[in-house]
Amino acid sequence: MFEVIGERINTSRKPVQAAVAERDADYIIDDVKKQQEAGATFIDVNAGARIGHEEEDMRWLLDTIQPVCEIPLALDSPDPAILEMAFAMVEKTPLVNSISLEKERFEAMMPFLDGRECKIIALCMDDAGMPGSSDDILGRARKLVSELNSIGIATSDIYVDPLVQPISTDAGKGVMVLDAVRAIKAEFPEVHITGGLSNISYGLPQRHIINRTFVTLMMDAGMDSAIIDPLDRKIMATIRTADMLLGHDQFCMQYLQGVRSGAIES
Amino acid sequence: MFEVIGERINTSRKPVQAAVAERDADYIIDDVKKQQEAGATFIDVNAGARIGHEEEDMRWLLDTIQPVCEIPLALDSPDPAILEMAFAMVEKTPLVNSISLEKERFEAMMPFLDGRECKIIALCMDDAGMPGSSDDILGRARKLVSELNSIGIATSDIYVDPLVQPISTDAGKGVMVLDAVRAIKAEFPEVHITGGLSNISYGLPQRHIINRTFVTLMMDAGMDSAIIDPLDRKIMATIRTADMLLGHDQFCMQYLQGVRSGAIES
Repeated sequence: MFEVIGERINTSRKPVQAAVAERDADYIIDDVKKQQEAGATFIDVNAGARIGHEEEDMRWLLDTIQPVCEIPLALDSPDPAILEMAFAMVEKTPLVNSISLEKERFEAMMPFLDGRECKIIALCMDDAGMPGSSDDILGRARKLVSELNSIGIATSDIYVDPLVQPISTDAGKGVMVLDAVRAIKAEFPEVHITGGLSNISYGLPQRHIINRTFVTLMMDAGMDSAIIDPLDRKIMATIRTADMLLGHDQFCMQYLQGVRSGAIES
Repeated sequence: MFEVIGERINTSRKPVQAAVAERDADYIIDDVKKQQEAGATFIDVNAGARIGHEEEDMRWLLDTIQPVCEIPLALDSPDPAILEMAFAMVEKTPLVNSISLEKERFEAMMPFLDGRECKIIALCMDDAGMPGSSDDILGRARKLVSELNSIGIATSDIYVDPLVQPISTDAGKGVMVLDAVRAIKAEFPEVHITGGLSNISYGLPQRHIINRTFVTLMMDAGMDSAIIDPLDRKIMATIRTADMLLGHDQFCMQYLQGVRSGAIES
């Protein structure tokens, strides 16, 4: 089944920032419960937006979320010291968000990850910037998998993010990432493919239909996870429907349950 | 660009049957104009439902439609005598709907099609019934292309219909037809892939979301045409969006035009 990394607990979102600043635990607990009920697989927690407060904000968020959270967390920080603290607090094996091939981030994250039990999002980003072709994405994925394997992280614990780019800048940007995902899955069948989707529609109107049509195409190519808002009912309904059509829903059980609960509408 | 075979002018639809019985030309003209405005590439015409009246109904429909129709027709009849009459009436090269490998239909259609200038829908159906596997679909497509080539019909004029089957009967029915479409396009890059889509959702609730998620997957596999209702705004919006994401819409021109005209909404 497709894995949904719920993106809502992020202090760059205004209401979350306000709730964190006011230590409004009820708001955070309510949001986490809603994400779980909507079908999230992980709850992403990002406390990076209040400069100088990341450590105390992350600590408070984890203290607040853990008692009500039945699913693992995605610990979203580039700072190994924050992650170190977070690892000591979480009860379930976390997903780390993220490593990349950018020199600074790579060199900070590799020693931290060495020998640790976790899942990891690996961004196909390096110091040259965004990838320019399918082969470029594949090359970066290959390097990330190889480096992570070398410090004991299994391929099946790696979530490669091929970095979706706006179709408005180049009509080929969709096919570029779809081809890359197919190539990565052909070479590493056990790797997960994840990422945000909304970049695809950047600069265009009526973005939701683009995002949900694109997730369908990405799922066909092999994407099995995404960083999204689980409370976006239409994209969640599309994901469940595509999962069924791609053969991952025996007897249409999940789909029918989604219709009965009101989560899936035409 | 994706080709839309507008399915509305079919006497098995109650209001069309009534309009044909009453020779209500205004109803038919209005419907055809709406299909054209919505982006139909062909107007399918099926006069088969009023038993014993097919010839006169088809003649009246063609007389009624032709003066207002700027796009080619899909002549939808299994009867070569009806098609013979229709061919003499149409102004643009028609799409014939359809031939199959069922003995009776095959033997009736082949002599009719021999040496004729037309496009043809080729159903992957034979006397054993619906295909049972991807290989079975591919084998039937191969036979149809070979037979049609042998009587002078170019591969690029053949629209293979792989026959979509309900996902409710078997969770693998989606992947079966998707794999078959990929295999057919790999072997015959010039062939078109078409068909109805709504069979995929037969027996399930909230069918529209299944149909439009499925057309996205089918387009990714290589489907470049479908027999649908062009007035179904949501499926048409999905098709335009998927066309853009698959690299067929330079500068997002068609998509942006669709948004401006109100045809595409999130």
